Amino acid sequence: MEKLEQLYEGKAKKVFKTDNPNEFIIEYKDDATAFNGEKKGSIVGKGVINNKMTELVFNMLEEKGIPTHFIKLLSDSEQLVKAVTIFPLEVIIRNTAAGSVCKRLGLEEGLKLKTPIFEFCYKNDAFGDPMINDSHIIAMELATADEIETIRDMTYKINDILKPYFFEKGINLIDFKIEFGKTNDGQIVLADEISPDTCRFWDVKTNEKLDKDRFRRDLGNVEGAYVEMLKRVQS
Amino acid sequence: MEKLEQLYEGKAKKVFKTDNPNEFIIEYKDDATAFNGEKKGSIVGKGVINNKMTELVFNMLEEKGIPTHFIKLLSDSEQLVKAVTIFPLEVIIRNTAAGSVCKRLGLEEGLKLKTPIFEFCYKNDAFGDPMINDSHIIAMELATADEIETIRDMTYKINDILKPYFFEKGINLIDFKIEFGKTNDGQIVLADEISPDTCRFWDVKTNEKLDKDRFRRDLGNVEGAYVEMLKRVQS
Repeated sequence: MEKLEQLYEGKAKKVFKTDNPNEFIIEYKDDATAFNGEKKGSIVGKGVINNKMTELVFNMLEEKGIPTHFIKLLSDSEQLVKAVTIFPLEVIIRNTAAGSVCKRLGLEEGLKLKTPIFEFCYKNDAFGDPMINDSHIIAMELATADEIETIRDMTYKINDILKPYFFEKGINLIDFKIEFGKTNDGQIVLADEISPDTCRFWDVKTNEKLDKDRFRRDLGNVEGAYVEMLKRVQS
Repeated sequence: MEKLEQLYEGKAKKVFKTDNPNEFIIEYKDDATAFNGEKKGSIVGKGVINNKMTELVFNMLEEKGIPTHFIKLLSDSEQLVKAVTIFPLEVIIRNTAAGSVCKRLGLEEGLKLKTPIFEFCYKNDAFGDPMINDSHIIAMELATADEIETIRDMTYKINDILKPYFFEKGINLIDFKIEFGKTNDGQIVLADEISPDTCRFWDVKTNEKLDKDRFRRDLGNVEGAYVEMLKRVQS
């Protein structure tokens, strides 16, 4: 399998074609951005950590019946995945209020929600990834009603798997953002990554933040938090 | 029936208790605000027009099976309504893209949507009436899942009635915002108003705006547009 031309470069990853039309290579970067690209920086070792954590978490999810794009690790910072067309949707579950939802709705950070909040955002940097709902998605033809239902069902299932998985590792899963793609044969699969870039992880005992909020909010020990999270997932 | 103390003063209306615990009096004002209160002004005659238009439209909706809070007109600017507890939700239907949705999502003003966009906003001035979805409403206990379903169903039905009703009067119903309340005996009813303050009305032939956008965007002839809309509804 040969790594061919770059298809896409995002904030944290690059995607490459391969000589197999059904497979892409993803290369994870150390680059970090926040607040829709207003804050830029680098987290040393992040690419390797997120690549490895996503391998472990996606393999675990596959075992529990969630189809994902992950095929295999290729190197410390590269993985082979199924070629997918990404839905231009950020899919978010919030188990505890934190971050943007607190500012937008006046919820207190750390408020445990009686039922999870589920959000779709329109993945579009020019508009700041605005929140949308099913009716916008259908009217804008970003996905069909059936695809939305599949994505919502899978996301709630993923949350039901991830919450106890991380809790056993001493981590409260506060919230997470995932993305979905469609393979060349039309299957909807979990894509993108699951890492401290895309989840809020709080230590169960100390509430210490072990995620990208350390970068966003200049809390220090950013690299240490990523290293600690990979250690917990590997344990 | 006696008008007692003021319960609430909003941007465009005042609500008063009466000596009947199941009835309120609403007084419509000429005051106009836009952009979450940043722009303030007055539209001469607006209170009377919106009071009368809401009477006509709510009576028509009642005849077509939509329960509303409206009981009867009391004066040019006052109406008697059922006492309700208002859900803190702005419920919006968009048939054609206009206003905030264009800025937020990059849609072209005037784009006819293949399917309507349905939005809930959290009625809260301090946070600028942010858009929310079912999961926020349930987590924040603003309404139950059953109440949300009733409100959504009624709103789509109201749109299906209002679109042809206004079209016969030479008006394209671009979008509208409504509110719902719960009566003392637990019935969910359409509340608030239906007027050029809360709808976008475009003339079918000329696309002339006959609504509050004339005030928001300083288009001139604001009062004339309100007078014209009442004339069309009375015709």
